[in-house]
Amino acid sequence: MKVGIIGASGYTGSELLRILANHPEAEVIAASSRRYEGQKIWKVHRFLKGFYDLEFCSPELSNFGDCDLVFTAVPHGEAMKYVPQLLDSGIKVVDISADYRLDKETYERVYGKKHEGYVEAVYGLTELHREEIKKANLVANPGCYPTGTILAASPLAKLELIERVVFDCKSGITGAGESPSAFTHYPNLHESIVPYKITEHRHYYEMVQELGRFQSDIKISFTPQVYPGSRGILTNAHVFLRGELTREELYRIYEEFYEDSFFVRIQESVSLSQVRGSNFCDISIHPGEDRVVVVSAIDNLVKGASGQAVQNMNLMMGFDETLGLRTPPLFP
Amino acid sequence: MKVGIIGASGYTGSELLRILANHPEAEVIAASSRRYEGQKIWKVHRFLKGFYDLEFCSPELSNFGDCDLVFTAVPHGEAMKYVPQLLDSGIKVVDISADYRLDKETYERVYGKKHEGYVEAVYGLTELHREEIKKANLVANPGCYPTGTILAASPLAKLELIERVVFDCKSGITGAGESPSAFTHYPNLHESIVPYKITEHRHYYEMVQELGRFQSDIKISFTPQVYPGSRGILTNAHVFLRGELTREELYRIYEEFYEDSFFVRIQESVSLSQVRGSNFCDISIHPGEDRVVVVSAIDNLVKGASGQAVQNMNLMMGFDETLGLRTPPLFP
Amino acid sequence: MKVGIIGASGYTGSELLRILANHPEAEVIAASSRRYEGQKIWKVHRFLKGFYDLEFCSPELSNFGDCDLVFTAVPHGEAMKYVPQLLDSGIKVVDISADYRLDKETYERVYGKKHEGYVEAVYGLTELHREEIKKANLVANPGCYPTGTILAASPLAKLELIERVVFDCKSGITGAGESPSAFTHYPNLHESIVPYKITEHRHYYEMVQELGRFQSDIKISFTPQVYPGSRGILTNAHVFLRGELTREELYRIYEEFYEDSFFVRIQESVSLSQVRGSNFCDISIHPGEDRVVVVSAIDNLVKGASGQAVQNMNLMMGFDETLGLRTPPLFP
Amino acid sequence: MKVGIIGASGYTGSELLRILANHPEAEVIAASSRRYEGQKIWKVHRFLKGFYDLEFCSPELSNFGDCDLVFTAVPHGEAMKYVPQLLDSGIKVVDISADYRLDKETYERVYGKKHEGYVEAVYGLTELHREEIKKANLVANPGCYPTGTILAASPLAKLELIERVVFDCKSGITGAGESPSAFTHYPNLHESIVPYKITEHRHYYEMVQELGRFQSDIKISFTPQVYPGSRGILTNAHVFLRGELTREELYRIYEEFYEDSFFVRIQESVSLSQVRGSNFCDISIHPGEDRVVVVSAIDNLVKGASGQAVQNMNLMMGFDETLGLRTPPLFP
Repeated sequence: MKVGIIGASGYTGSELLRILANHPEAEVIAASSRRYEGQKIWKVHRFLKGFYDLEFCSPELSNFGDCDLVFTAVPHGEAMKYVPQLLDSGIKVVDISADYRLDKETYERVYGKKHEGYVEAVYGLTELHREEIKKANLVANPGCYPTGTILAASPLAKLELIERVVFDCKSGITGAGESPSAFTHYPNLHESIVPYKITEHRHYYEMVQELGRFQSDIKISFTPQVYPGSRGILTNAHVFLRGELTREELYRIYEEFYEDSFFVRIQESVSLSQVRGSNFCDISIHPGEDRVVVVSAIDNLVKGASGQAVQNMNLMMGFDETLGLRTPPLFP
Repeated sequence: MKVGIIGASGYTGSELLRILANHPEAEVIAASSRRYEGQKIWKVHRFLKGFYDLEFCSPELSNFGDCDLVFTAVPHGEAMKYVPQLLDSGIKVVDISADYRLDKETYERVYGKKHEGYVEAVYGLTELHREEIKKANLVANPGCYPTGTILAASPLAKLELIERVVFDCKSGITGAGESPSAFTHYPNLHESIVPYKITEHRHYYEMVQELGRFQSDIKISFTPQVYPGSRGILTNAHVFLRGELTREELYRIYEEFYEDSFFVRIQESVSLSQVRGSNFCDISIHPGEDRVVVVSAIDNLVKGASGQAVQNMNLMMGFDETLGLRTPPLFP
Repeated sequence: MKVGIIGASGYTGSELLRILANHPEAEVIAASSRRYEGQKIWKVHRFLKGFYDLEFCSPELSNFGDCDLVFTAVPHGEAMKYVPQLLDSGIKVVDISADYRLDKETYERVYGKKHEGYVEAVYGLTELHREEIKKANLVANPGCYPTGTILAASPLAKLELIERVVFDCKSGITGAGESPSAFTHYPNLHESIVPYKITEHRHYYEMVQELGRFQSDIKISFTPQVYPGSRGILTNAHVFLRGELTREELYRIYEEFYEDSFFVRIQESVSLSQVRGSNFCDISIHPGEDRVVVVSAIDNLVKGASGQAVQNMNLMMGFDETLGLRTPPLFP
Repeated sequence: MKVGIIGASGYTGSELLRILANHPEAEVIAASSRRYEGQKIWKVHRFLKGFYDLEFCSPELSNFGDCDLVFTAVPHGEAMKYVPQLLDSGIKVVDISADYRLDKETYERVYGKKHEGYVEAVYGLTELHREEIKKANLVANPGCYPTGTILAASPLAKLELIERVVFDCKSGITGAGESPSAFTHYPNLHESIVPYKITEHRHYYEMVQELGRFQSDIKISFTPQVYPGSRGILTNAHVFLRGELTREELYRIYEEFYEDSFFVRIQESVSLSQVRGSNFCDISIHPGEDRVVVVSAIDNLVKGASGQAVQNMNLMMGFDETLGLRTPPLFP
């Protein structure tokens, strides 16, 4: 199959290139970057020397006409300029931006802008929407934080057991993108944990939408922060339950919920080092007297972005969802 | 005044030596270490070359007879072997271990051992118990996590406004002590956040004790973790309030509560880099629709241990509590 | 083909398991660990959950009888206990320890012990000894530092152009192994560069042996150090040349020397992030008025150990040397 | 005494503020910042809350008229706009920029610009030029790399024993200043060592100038790089000697050379953690068969910049050079 990437110079774009370099069925035939148009991909992403001879192109539709599927890896507000055209041309799309994750009204309220070119998409948290994704032409790839949090809470939400959940999440700094800023300046992060948008991060609404499908009265709180590392999101889900469950019951609920999901591993303990560079979401469950803490770990650029995008592509194209993604994590 | 340190080879011990090297009134005349007995302090703590000519002694009482005050910086269960004798000899004590922080019954339950030599102590969270500390002969220096959490929640607990609080805390790895272990092995921590004792850390009981003094029906949850750094504890206190307060009201409550406390700084945002190497606890307050998040930052070895111990010493000896401690943080 | 690993619980062992999980021709049928004998591999190496169902076995020969090739990933002095038996049984061996890298006399002098069971091996720096490796039954996999330094200097040494070379190398801390020690204790490394065995590291003799093959009068100096990271070796080769070469001439020499070597990439600048997780050695060349600095970057666990071991296995078994190893680095 | 700082918003400026906050004799009465003019210092440098009530002023001379001494902490090319005026007004100056470190001709060649307002200054490597500094009105504070390298090599250069020296230096990223850039973007540095200006850094000329005073025929090579940390410079000086010296002789030479220098400590081994936050330069000496490696460690912002500037101020004002600087390092 032939694949295109609109927006291939940022981290999610280069991560798609990295992952697809090893995919046995997909070939990247077009990758756009306004900034680097006309330059060889490997001269910009030097780590890819030896893997691509392609040059960056412009994002014009004509460059992507031969693609079976295109990934849009551009900022929110930008993707909506490309997606409708691509769909009209019969090209399937996985959008990695936020543009199609929420219903139109919520999107416009949360992101503070009119949505031009709204189409309904399937929310691409693969483990929750596998069957719809197989039939979809447009998949809205989830945010990185929603991936880690929703996977951590879904098994209990589905049983409507959650009174309240507090998500305290720590992300690697690649989550902030590849543009330098005061926020990503090394001395401002070294040996620090930096909370930001402490009660107001927009990913919150994806959690409300998806966990609300299971349990409408769930109370959700969410705080993101960055930690001094490049990749990874560790989520502590502090869950206040209705009723009591033993450790064994909890583990059984999670094992069953994810029994057909290769990329969710229920572990006794989790660590970012145990998932880095892979598409896995590792989960461990820790019941206490006051609450249950569910800990999940993902690589924000893989399961939290480009890896899950390829997982969705696989389903949309009729492949096994793990194709090209069965790579062990890079430990340690 | 003459000061002794029992247990001066670990991190809290060397931190006392570091801080006291600049104290205008205190002179360290005895510092014990079983392991390094007879060796020059600076040959073990090479960063202190030029500051101490003293040798490590044994922890026998006779070596500490001339001291006005002794810090016990030994593991819990060990301090109780020295403290009663020291008090009997008329020597004031600041105990940095956990041995005197809880009432006897709670201690024995939580730490799983009989308490030999129990005496009542003042809990040394200086900002809460200043007047009692001035009169005390024995001060139980708080744990590092309780320092950060209790300071973050006290102003609201005092007004009995807290329905529930979830403390999610991240500590530098010096909190694990200076003995190598799998937990502190560099590759096991690099670029990771590692939760541990997720629902069962013993510091929890100090939080219950101290916040319970203000508000008996408070519901507290606590999860500790280490982050890849040497020093610092960042606490996210997710507070579910009774009633609503504006940002201005919240800031006013905190400013007033700490108006006489040099070492608690109410800031618009906090960062571990802004307190590292100092005795400050920086606090910022972030009200959201679902809850208020109070963020506090301390250096775990200073305000979380040896700095607060010196702050307590100052009060016990009649000095200004900031004496020898008015050092700006080492930013960045 | 069937593969065995003697010593599969340490970092080089787990790295072999990681790499071989994706190898299209090799299947690991036996992996030994005295410490974890009888336990499932994935319960010890949790990052491998989903990839291996095998249990660790003992290192007895009988467990490896069906193997076509065995990797010995044990400490030096240990490998010599297994290698001769394996060879006698007709099993090919790649030894990752230091036991077969030097001639017997040099080994005994440098490592200070008698060599029991000496056999001649091919030194497994693949790019230098490709043809001999194809025919070898025993390959001595190079040390991590020698890999980075010898690849950096060989093109100039081959032309006998080097008056003197000073190798200043920085290694990630996995190079110290997976056993905790004061050296690997997080707070002893954080934000530090720690030189060790500053003029006396044993890897020096591999450099003398291999570069001496090209140019017998070469003067070599070498200093290793660790930097605060998990994986990677960055080498600065400060080369004092006989005669002058322009930047273009230098680049041409390197491009030609490595033109058939997929895993050596000549770049304009190099970075550990550009090779991490891959079998690449990236090299850049920087001529100045006083000397030429050649910078090389490898992942110490891949090209510096287990990746190169698999590269050698490929040649010994008649496969393309890149089989199972054409994976892009994990950037950033 | 009354002190001013021109350029107080960058790292060397804020470090001066940090250090001077504890100086018993110096009071900062004016601190300029074009960007933050009119704002309270502590609102910009939040770590200084509680220490300064002053507002940033403009760099006009009139704001500094009451100062006894002014630090110019602005980029090179900028300092020369202020220094002559300040001197004319009878104000002593410590210039932290590069503008007065080299003779006029060398400066213009190396920095590629005309020097307006050249005056002769004393090169402020305190341990080498103590007596001249006491009498100076203008001291040119050394660069960070020159401080670490020249202190490492001077005792041997003074005896004219050095055939060749190769300085391989690793700096914390604060050396790049507080402006965000691709170079300082966290993911570009994480777990990496990044050499830059590999054979052409301008600090080289300070080394040539100062070591050349001792030994005119010395051959010097220098390569700088950044390591993933905030503060510190570790220097490996690979010294090729004329003649042989035992370890004891070497240590004696260094001990004697620095016997009156409180801030240079001759140690058995050195570590950035053992000097961080302090004005110390720790040095250890490692003779091998091929060469001697001298390792030095400094905090680049203290001994490598603002601490040494205050040390120079102390001498210029007739104080003990250690006044306000006898602070132990912040270990670990």
